[in-house]
Amino acid sequence: MATNELDRLTQLLSRLPGLGPRSARRAVLYLMKKRESLMLPLAKAMTAAASSITNCRVCGNLDTENPCHICQSPKRDISKICVVEEVGDLWALERSGAFKGHYHVLGGTLSALDGRGPAQLHVNGLLDRAGEPHVQEVILALSATVDGQTTGHYLNECLAGYEVDVSKLAHGVPVGGSLDYLDDGTLSAALKARRSAN
Amino acid sequence: MATNELDRLTQLLSRLPGLGPRSARRAVLYLMKKRESLMLPLAKAMTAAASSITNCRVCGNLDTENPCHICQSPKRDISKICVVEEVGDLWALERSGAFKGHYHVLGGTLSALDGRGPAQLHVNGLLDRAGEPHVQEVILALSATVDGQTTGHYLNECLAGYEVDVSKLAHGVPVGGSLDYLDDGTLSAALKARRSAN
Repeated sequence: MATNELDRLTQLLSRLPGLGPRSARRAVLYLMKKRESLMLPLAKAMTAAASSITNCRVCGNLDTENPCHICQSPKRDISKICVVEEVGDLWALERSGAFKGHYHVLGGTLSALDGRGPAQLHVNGLLDRAGEPHVQEVILALSATVDGQTTGHYLNECLAGYEVDVSKLAHGVPVGGSLDYLDDGTLSAALKARRSAN
Repeated sequence: MATNELDRLTQLLSRLPGLGPRSARRAVLYLMKKRESLMLPLAKAMTAAASSITNCRVCGNLDTENPCHICQSPKRDISKICVVEEVGDLWALERSGAFKGHYHVLGGTLSALDGRGPAQLHVNGLLDRAGEPHVQEVILALSATVDGQTTGHYLNECLAGYEVDVSKLAHGVPVGGSLDYLDDGTLSAALKARRSAN
């Protein structure tokens, strides 16, 4: 149908999450219409990002600086480390603006099915940081999935010998959520963790 | 949250059809994980396509060659021209393998709402080609929308003075489609266009 160049571009684009062969074709046709305004800038932005962005050697965040701007910032609370699975989770917490401490990106969860053990995660770096005298709390912000909770238990055990408080995110009714549509697990967790209404 | 490079890449990616800000962020994180195997090849493929692919000066198809490989091919039937709205429609017909003639890409439809008149479409090129002695049939393969059908009527009038047959795609039950789920318009069109079952 099309030429090799367009085929190749379509194939590469269809490997992105959220794009299949059909939407990749649509994207390629759109790109060909916006050559100067979108296609070339996008190619440049990718090349630039590939060469300039690295994983922070302290926390694992993606940034042009290393250590990253969060690890370097004098405004952040150095007594708290929030442990997340992926950089995307770190971004989500930063967007919420609810956390002003430091982060630690594990790089995934333990998973028996996928054969990921502690050696595949950045656990040692976390333990090194937890041993530093200024760190008082490690917050486990992991997914409420089986793998996420298994990882949380494992980290909790690893951190038992350290002089830090280990906490985890609360389960409960999502803000804006209606009880009617909530699953049983969340409902019972929210009921168990009920607080005084005063 | 992220650095300027990542923000910029996310913004550019989110302008692709089918990707919003959320899926663009996911795509950027995925790209950062597959730097060598996906991100840099994708950037290269875009740069290569932007410089080497042009619109065929005869039919409007996208190709590295100009005229495109369809217009140049000695195997295609030069007596038939299939008129489509966009290059994506041409690709869809080529994938079906049902048409072995030449194409003509209009570049859209007439649209009163969007203010697109005949001057914005490649109508003159089509009329020039329809006037060539070897062309016997012009097939209007336009969308079954109001704009598509308006464009079809307009082209039919334009082609009235030329010695070519003008045909259009049949309406009817899609292959694999069940009557139960079909809209009334399609059903009555299929009924009107019924054929002998022998």
